[in-house]
Amino acid sequence: MALNRSTTATIAVERMPGKIALEEATGSPHFVAHGTHPPTPMIIGSKDGLPPYNTPFLEDIDDRLNNVEKRLQSMDQSGIGYAIVSLTCPGVEGIFDPKEAVELARKTNDSLYELYVKPHPTRFGFFCSVPMQDPEAAVKELERSVKELGAKGALINGFTNLDINDVSKVQYLDDPKCEPLWQKLNDLNVPLYLHPRIPPLNQQRMYENMPNLSQAAYGFGIETAGHALRIMCSGVFDRYPAVQLILGHCAEALPFLAHRIDHRMAIGIRGNNGPYKKSIMYYLQNNVYATLAGVRRESTMRNTIDELGESRTLFSVDYPYESNEDAADWFDGMQMNENTRRAIGYENAQRLFKL
Amino acid sequence: MALNRSTTATIAVERMPGKIALEEATGSPHFVAHGTHPPTPMIIGSKDGLPPYNTPFLEDIDDRLNNVEKRLQSMDQSGIGYAIVSLTCPGVEGIFDPKEAVELARKTNDSLYELYVKPHPTRFGFFCSVPMQDPEAAVKELERSVKELGAKGALINGFTNLDINDVSKVQYLDDPKCEPLWQKLNDLNVPLYLHPRIPPLNQQRMYENMPNLSQAAYGFGIETAGHALRIMCSGVFDRYPAVQLILGHCAEALPFLAHRIDHRMAIGIRGNNGPYKKSIMYYLQNNVYATLAGVRRESTMRNTIDELGESRTLFSVDYPYESNEDAADWFDGMQMNENTRRAIGYENAQRLFKL
Amino acid sequence: MALNRSTTATIAVERMPGKIALEEATGSPHFVAHGTHPPTPMIIGSKDGLPPYNTPFLEDIDDRLNNVEKRLQSMDQSGIGYAIVSLTCPGVEGIFDPKEAVELARKTNDSLYELYVKPHPTRFGFFCSVPMQDPEAAVKELERSVKELGAKGALINGFTNLDINDVSKVQYLDDPKCEPLWQKLNDLNVPLYLHPRIPPLNQQRMYENMPNLSQAAYGFGIETAGHALRIMCSGVFDRYPAVQLILGHCAEALPFLAHRIDHRMAIGIRGNNGPYKKSIMYYLQNNVYATLAGVRRESTMRNTIDELGESRTLFSVDYPYESNEDAADWFDGMQMNENTRRAIGYENAQRLFKL
Amino acid sequence: MALNRSTTATIAVERMPGKIALEEATGSPHFVAHGTHPPTPMIIGSKDGLPPYNTPFLEDIDDRLNNVEKRLQSMDQSGIGYAIVSLTCPGVEGIFDPKEAVELARKTNDSLYELYVKPHPTRFGFFCSVPMQDPEAAVKELERSVKELGAKGALINGFTNLDINDVSKVQYLDDPKCEPLWQKLNDLNVPLYLHPRIPPLNQQRMYENMPNLSQAAYGFGIETAGHALRIMCSGVFDRYPAVQLILGHCAEALPFLAHRIDHRMAIGIRGNNGPYKKSIMYYLQNNVYATLAGVRRESTMRNTIDELGESRTLFSVDYPYESNEDAADWFDGMQMNENTRRAIGYENAQRLFKL
Repeated sequence: MALNRSTTATIAVERMPGKIALEEATGSPHFVAHGTHPPTPMIIGSKDGLPPYNTPFLEDIDDRLNNVEKRLQSMDQSGIGYAIVSLTCPGVEGIFDPKEAVELARKTNDSLYELYVKPHPTRFGFFCSVPMQDPEAAVKELERSVKELGAKGALINGFTNLDINDVSKVQYLDDPKCEPLWQKLNDLNVPLYLHPRIPPLNQQRMYENMPNLSQAAYGFGIETAGHALRIMCSGVFDRYPAVQLILGHCAEALPFLAHRIDHRMAIGIRGNNGPYKKSIMYYLQNNVYATLAGVRRESTMRNTIDELGESRTLFSVDYPYESNEDAADWFDGMQMNENTRRAIGYENAQRLFKL
Repeated sequence: MALNRSTTATIAVERMPGKIALEEATGSPHFVAHGTHPPTPMIIGSKDGLPPYNTPFLEDIDDRLNNVEKRLQSMDQSGIGYAIVSLTCPGVEGIFDPKEAVELARKTNDSLYELYVKPHPTRFGFFCSVPMQDPEAAVKELERSVKELGAKGALINGFTNLDINDVSKVQYLDDPKCEPLWQKLNDLNVPLYLHPRIPPLNQQRMYENMPNLSQAAYGFGIETAGHALRIMCSGVFDRYPAVQLILGHCAEALPFLAHRIDHRMAIGIRGNNGPYKKSIMYYLQNNVYATLAGVRRESTMRNTIDELGESRTLFSVDYPYESNEDAADWFDGMQMNENTRRAIGYENAQRLFKL
Repeated sequence: MALNRSTTATIAVERMPGKIALEEATGSPHFVAHGTHPPTPMIIGSKDGLPPYNTPFLEDIDDRLNNVEKRLQSMDQSGIGYAIVSLTCPGVEGIFDPKEAVELARKTNDSLYELYVKPHPTRFGFFCSVPMQDPEAAVKELERSVKELGAKGALINGFTNLDINDVSKVQYLDDPKCEPLWQKLNDLNVPLYLHPRIPPLNQQRMYENMPNLSQAAYGFGIETAGHALRIMCSGVFDRYPAVQLILGHCAEALPFLAHRIDHRMAIGIRGNNGPYKKSIMYYLQNNVYATLAGVRRESTMRNTIDELGESRTLFSVDYPYESNEDAADWFDGMQMNENTRRAIGYENAQRLFKL
Repeated sequence: MALNRSTTATIAVERMPGKIALEEATGSPHFVAHGTHPPTPMIIGSKDGLPPYNTPFLEDIDDRLNNVEKRLQSMDQSGIGYAIVSLTCPGVEGIFDPKEAVELARKTNDSLYELYVKPHPTRFGFFCSVPMQDPEAAVKELERSVKELGAKGALINGFTNLDINDVSKVQYLDDPKCEPLWQKLNDLNVPLYLHPRIPPLNQQRMYENMPNLSQAAYGFGIETAGHALRIMCSGVFDRYPAVQLILGHCAEALPFLAHRIDHRMAIGIRGNNGPYKKSIMYYLQNNVYATLAGVRRESTMRNTIDELGESRTLFSVDYPYESNEDAADWFDGMQMNENTRRAIGYENAQRLFKL
């Protein structure tokens, strides 16, 4: 400790190596995955797929989605030892034609394996895409990806588009047609990462004229929380108590809200909100993992740990939409005992994915 | 401390007297305020105004909305010294005809004054209703209520209906037509309580078949958070930096999410999400008060205090939709220093409302 | 949730069964262990061994120290499935004659086994006493107790008296004579519970005229923290990195203070405070477990979890000096996710003691 | 947010200006105050006054204790707008001869006024020294300093030495001879800062061979907490309920321990620990302020805020024994809402000292 420092405004951060991140997006060699396919406006009033990001950010994105070396270099700088990559959103969920969805999912899964996992088995795993436009095919692709390619689980970007003529016609994972997916996740004993996706146009009224708010700033997190609630209320976790759902962004505010949701649901007529038997709080504590992707706020993290438990909180980044270096500075730099830092930084993930 | 107790499963709570609650709903003698007027289904698939509550709960509601003696008795049992009452939701906001809205707002404000405040000036204050279907009239009614009836501010139940033939045609408070309201709140130096309201039918897709989820369990909190974000992004708090917005339910998860909202908005093109100059975090800390109405969860409260500050967190209940006694047990019973318990229990409210 | 409750001042607590407690005191059939042996005043100004407790409390203590059935009954009421018992303080540490200490330690260890563990193997384990007046004999007794009687580790009540003519002549566990103890704990892979003991008379000046303050209220916790710091600074945990030290009462304020201790020690000349290589913070996180014995305060527990980690925090009571029922009400009743409640309630102890 | 940063290990801190610090030590032009007077060894085994600090630290200390310009420069770099300075420890409390103590206290108070306050009234205030070797004179000096020199209160460094031939003969502030001091503090309505001091030699047994542990690392904090407990138990705060005691280092672990102290004191015979009427917890919440001097640990600060309240927690540094820049980096850089940062950073102090 020096009594006098001339540089007064910086704090050095000691890097913790070996972190594991699991909400890390890539592109696909086979189609432009960060828009629907074919492209349709995803935000009220916008023409392109992505919201109007400022130009410096945009220019970088495509390169960073696909440049494996740059990604590894950034991981090295950030003390991230291992990343579970997945196709960026909306990904396969935004493919209107079911047959194309099936084919592009398969091809993309093969590519993620070939480009990331096979050459760098100690640095990368992947979550496979599953074409829920055709649930039967999705289930087969899940099995193939896990057993033949070593996929660590599946990642689904919110709702699945069903009709190019009606972009509001979508499918959520509590649809009975999706039951085989939950069965297969249970049988293979791998988790599902439910990743956000911009809500359908007809649901964006709350964020008219606020294109960033509709997507990552707010709207797509709320959409994901609602989707998770639909899944819980449908009784999926009663039928498959071992299945695990991963949610990013500290479980999309569900830790903050769960107690109130349960309390107000209890006022209703029994069974009126779905056949679920337990409670939202119970499912959060038994069937959900929360990642820190996109979160760099200690109080938010504390609320998440309070409600799910330290063992169900996992480090992640959301590269390249977030900076590995910034996430690492925040995580490595915060005042925290090292047992918890290791648990959240990589031990919980090692246990969950048997790494 | 007894080394042996036979009753092992109860903890006595010492009541803290003098608490102030400010999200406390009443009915109106002039119309049925807990539905739209005229009544329309407010939840997909339901015929009546209210969600299908279980029957014991429902039977009690109308009595408790209007029975002043019962309310006072419950407040006495709960150590609530003073309550700021307001018309239940959707209230005046759900009146389709502007002229009726103006008239019923005026009559209801007079009634709340006559029934609650005038006979019990040391026990009750009220927030007035303002008919935003006619902003000019709303502003006059706000002034009248504050100056002549001593209203502590206004309470608005979310969006305002504009058209009985199109229940999706609604108005939010960032609409330029609402500017005079903000100007008047500023001039009168009274706050606005933005209370939840069930989202319009066309926005309820996320909660299809889950009627309780669409309203108090989840949907109407999310709707309110979105509404508050619209208000902030429109620059209202830059134009009127002294105006204060009160949000219930621990500010509807905004404490949990604010850092992320700001961070992702910063990725956008400047000005693309509205003309606001500061940040969501800044407005939460300078223009927003959070009440504990409907919240009985310490971790949620801690996150709220962390992000807004102890001085901007206020006790409340949401009677009769919540139990005064349960809220008091939780608040009085939690382990907390008495300085903070007093601050949140009543001192912050005394300062805000000059009581 | 009832909107109206007539009993307004109690909160029901749902018992969590299967808790494990490990600071649970018994007497010995062979000598009066809650005083020195022979008895000497342990508190300035007092004649008897125990501080002047109020009479109702005192009358109960001897019975509760020795009545196995009453203890089991109380455990049943409190959801405590398993307790690791040990001889009350000062125990063997307060025996002046080394030969007596050796004999009474052995006899007492046999008795604890016979009275508690053998008849109730699924309800009780025990920590053995070790006569550090004769370190060689202590080490043999530790080995015998662990290998033949299944002791879960050793419990030492602070300093050991060495001389009946000079009660200030004491031995702490960083004394080089104690090295064989640490070696044996390492070899047997069992932990040491360092339990408080009233400081020697000549160290009680701070609490003159405040007999309760000198013992459990304050003085003996501070004495224990100082003792733990001596152990850490002597480099024991560098020589035996796997050895684990258990401290009650949330590690006697060390979580609160550790950062400051390390920071100020770093100002000193290297090596001037002992040959230790790491830091107090490091040892807390790698070599110390904290129990909740005697603590029923959530903020204190949170600080402990923050600094040691959830995995190193363990439920305990300190029966019969504390009430099992009160501890269980507090622990079972606090708002906490069930994963953490189970971890602290019993899973961490199951892992530490291989139960 | 850059997606790629080459400097990966630093976080910039935005300085909050206007902070107030109040445990800021100076020397005296009239005697060497960081030792006893005349000098005696203050640590077992050491010859000099100060513990064996490493040499770089020591060389700086005397300069920094007395160099006003350097202090101001450091305050400017750290965003500290105002500092309440006081004589370093042991200060006047370590002067053996009462007459000398009276004279040196008066001269030093005049000097602090002349050197700090008079030339820099918007940057410095001071706490006066009071020679408790002669309580009557001490009370007169307190009055003079407050009324004529504008002292903000008194600062006392722990116990007062009474006898050069017996350095263990000391006086604590609960001694009935000190009653006039409490009366005068009450009448003048100024607080008392109880600052640590190395325990008397005969009390240092716990830290033999660990000279830094005996002083700022641990021993002198524990000594101060014990002293504060003696004051509380003597009933001073019942006799003078408005008097305020300031403790540094987050109130020396009392927030962590208070609940347990009260609980165990309640087991004793009534009145057996002093005539106090309330509880330690009550006095902490009503009569104690905690400063962050010497603390740079968020969890410790949170426990302090939890138990005393945000309104009773104050920023401070302990310059020059701590670095202003480091304290400011920690305080300004931590994730905290700005209302609380301002309250703790300066608003609470402004209110307490009527600045």
